[in-house]
Amino acid sequence: MPVNMISKLLEKAVLPALDVAPPVKIGGPRRTSVLRNPNMEKLQKGYLFPEISIKREEHLKKYPDAKVISLGIGDTTEPIPSIVTSAMAEYALALSTPEGYQGYGPEQGHKNLRKEIADKVYPDMGIKESEVFISDGAQCDIARLQTLFGPNVIIAVQDPTFPGYVDNGVIMGQTGKADDGGRYAGIEYMRCAPENAFFPDLSRVRRTDVIFFCSPNNPTGHAASREQLRQLVELARRNGSIIVFDSAYSSYISSSSSSSTPRSIYEIPGAREVAIEVSSFSKFAGFTGVRLGWAVVPDELLYSDGVPVARDFDRVVCTCFNGASGIAQAGGVACLSTEEGRGAVARVVGVYRENARVLVETFRSLGKEVHGGGDAPYVWVRFPGRRSWDVFAEILEKTHVITVPGSGFGPGGEGFIRVSAFNSRDKVLEAAEKVGMIPATTIGSLKLLKYDGLTETRSATTEFHKRDIT
Amino acid sequence: MPVNMISKLLEKAVLPALDVAPPVKIGGPRRTSVLRNPNMEKLQKGYLFPEISIKREEHLKKYPDAKVISLGIGDTTEPIPSIVTSAMAEYALALSTPEGYQGYGPEQGHKNLRKEIADKVYPDMGIKESEVFISDGAQCDIARLQTLFGPNVIIAVQDPTFPGYVDNGVIMGQTGKADDGGRYAGIEYMRCAPENAFFPDLSRVRRTDVIFFCSPNNPTGHAASREQLRQLVELARRNGSIIVFDSAYSSYISSSSSSSTPRSIYEIPGAREVAIEVSSFSKFAGFTGVRLGWAVVPDELLYSDGVPVARDFDRVVCTCFNGASGIAQAGGVACLSTEEGRGAVARVVGVYRENARVLVETFRSLGKEVHGGGDAPYVWVRFPGRRSWDVFAEILEKTHVITVPGSGFGPGGEGFIRVSAFNSRDKVLEAAEKVGMIPATTIGSLKLLKYDGLTETRSATTEFHKRDIT
Repeated sequence: MPVNMISKLLEKAVLPALDVAPPVKIGGPRRTSVLRNPNMEKLQKGYLFPEISIKREEHLKKYPDAKVISLGIGDTTEPIPSIVTSAMAEYALALSTPEGYQGYGPEQGHKNLRKEIADKVYPDMGIKESEVFISDGAQCDIARLQTLFGPNVIIAVQDPTFPGYVDNGVIMGQTGKADDGGRYAGIEYMRCAPENAFFPDLSRVRRTDVIFFCSPNNPTGHAASREQLRQLVELARRNGSIIVFDSAYSSYISSSSSSSTPRSIYEIPGAREVAIEVSSFSKFAGFTGVRLGWAVVPDELLYSDGVPVARDFDRVVCTCFNGASGIAQAGGVACLSTEEGRGAVARVVGVYRENARVLVETFRSLGKEVHGGGDAPYVWVRFPGRRSWDVFAEILEKTHVITVPGSGFGPGGEGFIRVSAFNSRDKVLEAAEKVGMIPATTIGSLKLLKYDGLTETRSATTEFHKRDIT
Repeated sequence: MPVNMISKLLEKAVLPALDVAPPVKIGGPRRTSVLRNPNMEKLQKGYLFPEISIKREEHLKKYPDAKVISLGIGDTTEPIPSIVTSAMAEYALALSTPEGYQGYGPEQGHKNLRKEIADKVYPDMGIKESEVFISDGAQCDIARLQTLFGPNVIIAVQDPTFPGYVDNGVIMGQTGKADDGGRYAGIEYMRCAPENAFFPDLSRVRRTDVIFFCSPNNPTGHAASREQLRQLVELARRNGSIIVFDSAYSSYISSSSSSSTPRSIYEIPGAREVAIEVSSFSKFAGFTGVRLGWAVVPDELLYSDGVPVARDFDRVVCTCFNGASGIAQAGGVACLSTEEGRGAVARVVGVYRENARVLVETFRSLGKEVHGGGDAPYVWVRFPGRRSWDVFAEILEKTHVITVPGSGFGPGGEGFIRVSAFNSRDKVLEAAEKVGMIPATTIGSLKLLKYDGLTETRSATTEFHKRDIT
């Protein structure tokens, strides 16, 4: 049944009840007579990470002494450089002085941070300070963008992809129900698999209003090439679509790749008229708990009636949001404004990038087909013919290592697991050892690791610890 | 035309365009062919405070040397006690250590802060830690609550009231268009005026799914009595409605009033089954720029199908949000966990409360009808027969003092202005002098202040500075 028909029926169901509806009592506790939002009902199961969290708790109940290592949720673990935290501490302390106190900041963010982002993240891309909207993180911006677009748009997403695009679309009423395969009616799923170089055949993609595209991709770790993004922008221009480009992991693109692998959609000519970009300090500077991100909405991006998208987005930001914490914003400025700050945060990214390389090599040495991990903090490992949740459960049971089942990122992720490089070097090495030690028979076609003991494995993996990665 | 009919038409308009839609070119710059969200189109003019900001800029262009004093937006100005900022600075600095680093916190907030709020803000009200959801501020929670409720609910709001409830409802598609008086079709406006003790005649209020109720009220400064709130809860229970109670200003209720004027809806028996409460550290601890608030969703609050509202709200929090900044949360704990912290933030609230009393007396001494200001940081002044924006403009023109036109809070605010107590004592005294000196002829029926010069006025107003307020 189409979305709006459901709404229609509900409206009919609600309206006659006005003025008369008694509180519903069907045994048990007293209920209100408010109908549950039908869009919320459509959401499938729990959200992926809370679900994994539950599995982790169950595992700990079974093995109270197990040292569980999480290579699951993409959560940063390395300390933030002190040049950044000192700036935040200083800003916080100044709030106790008449000169340093600041109340509400502009909803769109502090001018100096907007300028640093425009200048340092988008050099030579023509992004203006006024086009940068500071936020409390990319996930929150995705929710606000879906609020902006509203219930009537049709969206396309990569499959597999970060669940936030789809889930926020479902909540907004953009979709019908999910089918047995987990695909929501009304959404265009663009399969991205090793077979198509993780880029859809655009000639077969149905025209949609909005295209969510994440590169480097979460979860596959694939960073789209310049040619792929050129095709994407061309498609959007041809179809009059809006691209929402998620570049939250762009700092993981190595400098050697960056000539062929753009870090921003605005490196592609013509993108300003069709693309919004969302990004974040979370994985770039370890701000997952500090909460800071941004969205770029170029002035040239227009709805069909000529109204600038930025005008409505500004309204959403002012109405649904009230600006990111000023303290976090001071930290963001410290990450970008000096050579020292930029160098310090880049070194932390370097640690995770090297972790990714350890994990790539570990799974490769087990004979697995491995993707990502080069220009991204995620490693995407194939387990042909296996169900992702089974592989996840088996790895957890046998090694106490948490990964993420690929199917949690969409039907196209079935048969894969995502392994996150976000953990300390020691933990990553320990996990690499544990995973490497699983006998071949226990996880699908995993081959027995060449090394026959902890010592050798450690010496082999610690090599990565010392090696510089360009 | 009903909301869903518009959606229906739009759907029809979009669907045939699939696969074929060429980018729209109607002269001027290239446009996408994405239809603007019709709900965004319904929003009236600019949001109130940006609008005032523009008027302020225009004024400064006209009078470049004017010292404009803002008693407009409810924005805190007093430094945050150092016991609170030290805790935030310490938390921030610890993020640079392996022991102190924290990545993503729970989306619902840190356990210790949830517990402090349950214990200290809701003593003896049976609120559990797990029922408290930490947020980045009440405005953001209101947006998330409207996302939770979705497009099919009918809401009621006080008139006048904070515009966020209605605006977020419009964005979600809960309403039709606004009429010439500024009232959106589909919303139940509950007039709250001096004539009805700022409380609607509930026997004439149409049944709605959700009732937004703010007490102490922004903008009228009226704090609802226990009897009024008892009637409100009774209405919600009778009609099976959900109350969203906004207690962002509850710390302004004086201890002498608090026996007859509840600080929380949960002081009313039966509220747990019908009420959500949103609140904030903004006006309680000067956190407007730090960003911290919370929502309480009791376990007993159920939709008509028996599903707990908290279950869906938790999903919204996990999907559209990712937790408040950990640094801000550490500050929140410092506000609540010790006697010293609670005392320090209470003293700052005391400053604003005394400011409010200065403003009440100033306008009273001019012969105006004045409301609020006793248990709230807002003073609500009547200008019979005048248009609010005209009064606003006249006060600004003559005194360089910014207020807020009452009509910005809904049609019921016409004929009033809101004067905010959020400024330093010196600025409030200066504004009181300036307003007091306007000749009677210039602002409606304003009477000429008794005092004939600056000196006398200052000595009269500085009395307030010294006087303790109970």
